[in-house]
Amino acid sequence: MKLYPAQYLLEVGTKLFTACGAPEEEAAIVASELVEASLMGLDSHGIVRYSQYVDDVFNGQTKPGAPLRVIKESPTTAVVDCGFNFGPVSAARMADIACEKGSRSNMAYVISRNCAHIGRLGSYVQRIAERGMFGFATCNSSKHGHWVVPWGGREGRLATNPLAYAAPTRGIPVVLDMSTSMISEGKVRVLMHQGKPAPEGCIQDASGDPTIDPAVFYGPPRGTIRPFGSELGYKGFGLALLVEIMSGIMAGEAASEEHPYVNGLAIMAINPEAFCGAAQFRDLMDDLCAYITSSPSAPGCKEVAMPGAYDFRIRRERLADGIPVDPSTWQSILDSVHRVGASITDLPLRPQDP
Amino acid sequence: MKLYPAQYLLEVGTKLFTACGAPEEEAAIVASELVEASLMGLDSHGIVRYSQYVDDVFNGQTKPGAPLRVIKESPTTAVVDCGFNFGPVSAARMADIACEKGSRSNMAYVISRNCAHIGRLGSYVQRIAERGMFGFATCNSSKHGHWVVPWGGREGRLATNPLAYAAPTRGIPVVLDMSTSMISEGKVRVLMHQGKPAPEGCIQDASGDPTIDPAVFYGPPRGTIRPFGSELGYKGFGLALLVEIMSGIMAGEAASEEHPYVNGLAIMAINPEAFCGAAQFRDLMDDLCAYITSSPSAPGCKEVAMPGAYDFRIRRERLADGIPVDPSTWQSILDSVHRVGASITDLPLRPQDP
Repeated sequence: MKLYPAQYLLEVGTKLFTACGAPEEEAAIVASELVEASLMGLDSHGIVRYSQYVDDVFNGQTKPGAPLRVIKESPTTAVVDCGFNFGPVSAARMADIACEKGSRSNMAYVISRNCAHIGRLGSYVQRIAERGMFGFATCNSSKHGHWVVPWGGREGRLATNPLAYAAPTRGIPVVLDMSTSMISEGKVRVLMHQGKPAPEGCIQDASGDPTIDPAVFYGPPRGTIRPFGSELGYKGFGLALLVEIMSGIMAGEAASEEHPYVNGLAIMAINPEAFCGAAQFRDLMDDLCAYITSSPSAPGCKEVAMPGAYDFRIRRERLADGIPVDPSTWQSILDSVHRVGASITDLPLRPQDP
Repeated sequence: MKLYPAQYLLEVGTKLFTACGAPEEEAAIVASELVEASLMGLDSHGIVRYSQYVDDVFNGQTKPGAPLRVIKESPTTAVVDCGFNFGPVSAARMADIACEKGSRSNMAYVISRNCAHIGRLGSYVQRIAERGMFGFATCNSSKHGHWVVPWGGREGRLATNPLAYAAPTRGIPVVLDMSTSMISEGKVRVLMHQGKPAPEGCIQDASGDPTIDPAVFYGPPRGTIRPFGSELGYKGFGLALLVEIMSGIMAGEAASEEHPYVNGLAIMAINPEAFCGAAQFRDLMDDLCAYITSSPSAPGCKEVAMPGAYDFRIRRERLADGIPVDPSTWQSILDSVHRVGASITDLPLRPQDP
């Protein structure tokens, strides 16, 4: 595992996606989103996706440089046809539209159509919080991603459907980014490759019986994932439906049908100026953070932390020390660079050993 | 346990709250909200609250007939000073304001100050869905209700903070109404009176160690409730914070301080007309319901149902058969009727034995 400076990985990614056909500015957005996820320790949504994003271009799923078109709008709302441009380009632009409308109209809700893989959902609500507003977002997937059963069911009907929110403070924002399932499909795959069992209560076999064996999960016949909440899983199911309604149904996409989109994204911006005022909101958020973290920890627990605090801590460390990248991920990035005919030999920053 | 017709209980409640000083129209709203909760099987939020609501008037916490004042507003937002009128009167009016603004501006967010106990949160989002819009609501409590620990903590910092949403279909709406904690304090109290243990993983003693003994929970020293999610309780904690931010912080109430309000309510209305269109939204909701419930059930599970479906089934049964009321609850209602100097002997409907 070598440590690579974030700036170097950013420049590699920008070259990579520019060579895929993206305008340099858009290539930089894609690279920046993936590097930011890696910086925050969310490696599954980080630069490990460089080669997947390139694959998606080659198989025609992603169309670099495709124009984003607002196909319906009002002072508070917008439906954005993303044209299968890179997901981070679409999502960042949607967050910007939500901010513009939110500042003027106090409330904004922006929804996608034809959107590719957006990466880390939390990033886009964080973008809203950085401009002093409260951001809320949901993200569904088209039918092929329906690994998650409805509560009490045995066939997949929903994706891992994450939701996220972010609120500004006087310091780092509070950012929650959570799936509404017990585990992600990607994590089960990693466990299978490692020869490890899944945690109890997360996955089912094709008959709907619980299993901890990733191989049984992948079948055939293929198994399913349970909604988040263990014995109270009807709540996780209800939240997964909230995500499906807000990001899929509202956009006009039937849940029961296969669609070419990868992620359906809904982003909301709420302007505290219309309520307690932007300055008081930040002060009260600071008060909330202090009050919450003033709880002593329970036996066996290290500390009480606000959502996102741990991620921002890792970000500081990795900004200073570099981002750890395993050799096979690095090789797949080099392969992608070669595949698109780019050259990174002229980049000034070099990876450094730990 | 006798069965009482809903209409009879509604008339008793209307007399009761009118005698408390509420205008008859407002008394009917309070009674109707509580009877509706009982009809849907949510007895803890139903007519068992008649006597508590009367107590709240006598102790000065609730002020029947107090005017509701919109103290700040924009085309999409409103802050409503509820003046400690009955909570259901305030919440129903807030939902109406959200509907009015939502129909005109596509998005609306209405937040309370000085609000009493609102009853069943799901009722107010249902009101929005009945007018063809998507409703989302959150409800916090002032500091005295902080029974719930932050994830990994041992002191209460949050209330059971429910959230709710409702979406219209061509038939009954989809309605989710869930707390963000493992159990409600009221339920632990009921278990203690029944001499029963609490389920595993729900409550902690004052040192933060798990317990299943309600007596240990009540102490002194008093114990705490865990956020929803079992081993993934950081998600329930994150959702509880979402509720606190949206319904408390946004309203300008410091979480760390004691306030006279009982519930802080935030209600949002989203108009599907601005997105896929109101008619298509209903069609796609029907498609979603059919797709979800087409999953065969897992072994040991009876059926897959949409959130709220079970409650509406009980409602049909209880509308036909009557609402079961135990003798001590009925006696406390009679005591309250006596206390406020009302008479219910002239009411035409009589309770009937099952």
